Amino acid sequence: MEHIFTYDRLYQFTYTIFKSIGCSDEHAALATKVLIAADVRGIDSHGVARLSGYVRLWEAKRINATPDIKIVHETPSTAVIDGDAGLGLVVAPFAMQVAIDKAKIAGTGWVSVRNSNHFGIAGYHAMMALQHDMVGMAMTNASALVAPTFSVERMLGTNPIAVAIPANEQPPFVADMATTTAANGKLEILQRKNADAPLGWVQDKDGKETTDANALKSAGALLPLGSDREHGSHKGYALGSIVDIFSAVFSGASYGPWAPPFPAYVPMPENMPGKGLGHFFGAMRIDAFRPADEFKAHMDNWITRFRQAKPADGYEKVLIPGDPEREMEADRMRDGIPVVEPVVKDLEEVGAKFNVQLG
Amino acid sequence: MEHIFTYDRLYQFTYTIFKSIGCSDEHAALATKVLIAADVRGIDSHGVARLSGYVRLWEAKRINATPDIKIVHETPSTAVIDGDAGLGLVVAPFAMQVAIDKAKIAGTGWVSVRNSNHFGIAGYHAMMALQHDMVGMAMTNASALVAPTFSVERMLGTNPIAVAIPANEQPPFVADMATTTAANGKLEILQRKNADAPLGWVQDKDGKETTDANALKSAGALLPLGSDREHGSHKGYALGSIVDIFSAVFSGASYGPWAPPFPAYVPMPENMPGKGLGHFFGAMRIDAFRPADEFKAHMDNWITRFRQAKPADGYEKVLIPGDPEREMEADRMRDGIPVVEPVVKDLEEVGAKFNVQLG
Repeated sequence: MEHIFTYDRLYQFTYTIFKSIGCSDEHAALATKVLIAADVRGIDSHGVARLSGYVRLWEAKRINATPDIKIVHETPSTAVIDGDAGLGLVVAPFAMQVAIDKAKIAGTGWVSVRNSNHFGIAGYHAMMALQHDMVGMAMTNASALVAPTFSVERMLGTNPIAVAIPANEQPPFVADMATTTAANGKLEILQRKNADAPLGWVQDKDGKETTDANALKSAGALLPLGSDREHGSHKGYALGSIVDIFSAVFSGASYGPWAPPFPAYVPMPENMPGKGLGHFFGAMRIDAFRPADEFKAHMDNWITRFRQAKPADGYEKVLIPGDPEREMEADRMRDGIPVVEPVVKDLEEVGAKFNVQLG
Repeated sequence: MEHIFTYDRLYQFTYTIFKSIGCSDEHAALATKVLIAADVRGIDSHGVARLSGYVRLWEAKRINATPDIKIVHETPSTAVIDGDAGLGLVVAPFAMQVAIDKAKIAGTGWVSVRNSNHFGIAGYHAMMALQHDMVGMAMTNASALVAPTFSVERMLGTNPIAVAIPANEQPPFVADMATTTAANGKLEILQRKNADAPLGWVQDKDGKETTDANALKSAGALLPLGSDREHGSHKGYALGSIVDIFSAVFSGASYGPWAPPFPAYVPMPENMPGKGLGHFFGAMRIDAFRPADEFKAHMDNWITRFRQAKPADGYEKVLIPGDPEREMEADRMRDGIPVVEPVVKDLEEVGAKFNVQLG
């Protein structure tokens, strides 16, 4: 069963919760906007479904509601930022803005972040660049759920990469993808339905392919994009590793199997080699390469040509990265945002903690 | 049947061929070094097996043996380079050096290249950054062999991404991967053996999965990393698209289905929206983020920890990206480089054109 919420109602509730844990007006508003962008774009696993998780991290003193976010090192085109254990939802837009500001002067800006937390959907931050006629990139490491090729041990998070590229008349190209075959959120949907997962999404504790959507609860692991060696899982493993290194080894965050867990009940790893989660952001000014109008006209041509690619039997059309999320956004802003029953219950419980009514 | 060549013998032959088409000493030496790096590292499809292809492109006047390679636009951290239809084997190291020089001053350097040709293995160029304590990146578009998710039309090349990251005591992390499930070279090996391809590598002309390793010869297509929608092929399609856009739309090269073909007998596409193939290079100075010694010590720790990840039953150990190619390089520099019979014949034919003996 689902409940339908208007954007404004989810916004007001979430904002009030962030205020209740001590965020400033500005931070609460920003965190809310970033968090709900996931629900609006149809990435339900990363939106209000995680609100109670953030609150529990705050209760466990793993999230600082009043962080002093600081640039700790910089060059003309780079910076390292310490998020002071703040909400990633607030630290990430700060860091992406630094990347954009660097790009205005140096042509590009690249920012690695340590001591942060889960930052919502990567696509939100990458898309910040679009209004400045820049290409935006965002990535983050995350707690280890993914086994490298040939291994049974969870060593990497789902470590997403987002890239946003502006066009003119066409909507922008926006890729936002976990570096695994399937995002963990898709597995959670199957778990709720007691349904099987396709082979190639997860392995069991012995490293065997399995359709058990609950395999992660019994020492299994998510599989890197490619699923198995024969189908290129070493490439997904390499991509997830690059995200981990750019996000955490560049910045001094904790990496690999030492990345801090999202669930507050999971103990922090021992001997962490850095502080908190890490992110990595990039902004490239289009006219640092060629005039923006010219580039965007070619992007229109690129997108139009790919939309015209001949579809296979049974398929209507070829999609451009970002199409499904943009269509979902239009639908949900018009018709409201569906929230499944367990998440509604969870929101009511977190509301009760602070005497905030969900509706 | 294979013939074994010493590095020096392959080098001398290839160098003499490049000299014979009119390359300067310097360009012939560089092109040879880059080309043979593929054979040495075990990526046989991209080494001397392509030499006759380059010569035929030169004969067709699609390659300029004496290019005037120029920076046509720049900012502190970016440049666009026109390769003047030169060998990508020469244009690419020039462009990567510009990225490195930019990074020395601005912290990072990003270079997009138009009017180039096939550049050998991406990994060679990315690895140029390592000796400067920089992270290196290299990518290129290529002629269309890959169908986007839901399509039967070839719209993208195998568009590889290479990322090289230095460590201290450990060898560097070097990922070099086509954004397809399997590189075309792997398919060529199966074709020579008349063997079947695993399901998920190629589709037939109707977009159906097939084990026919020759499917590309009858209007089939390579599949993006992920193989099918359920296993994330939309992610491989997005990655290949990003490579195409960074390499060609940033620079003014020809993109998507209009990328120029490698075989000289294939007519050039009509209405090309840009000039030649495109590449994209990046160099990030490590100490633009944190002290190089500190970073490299953490990379040693990262690599060591991943090597210790518990292997699955039947597997000896977890590999770090770059391990197989580095081991191959050690073997082949010691024992010689095997070249299969058809390639030896091909080299003898190209040698005969210029009165150059293979051995």
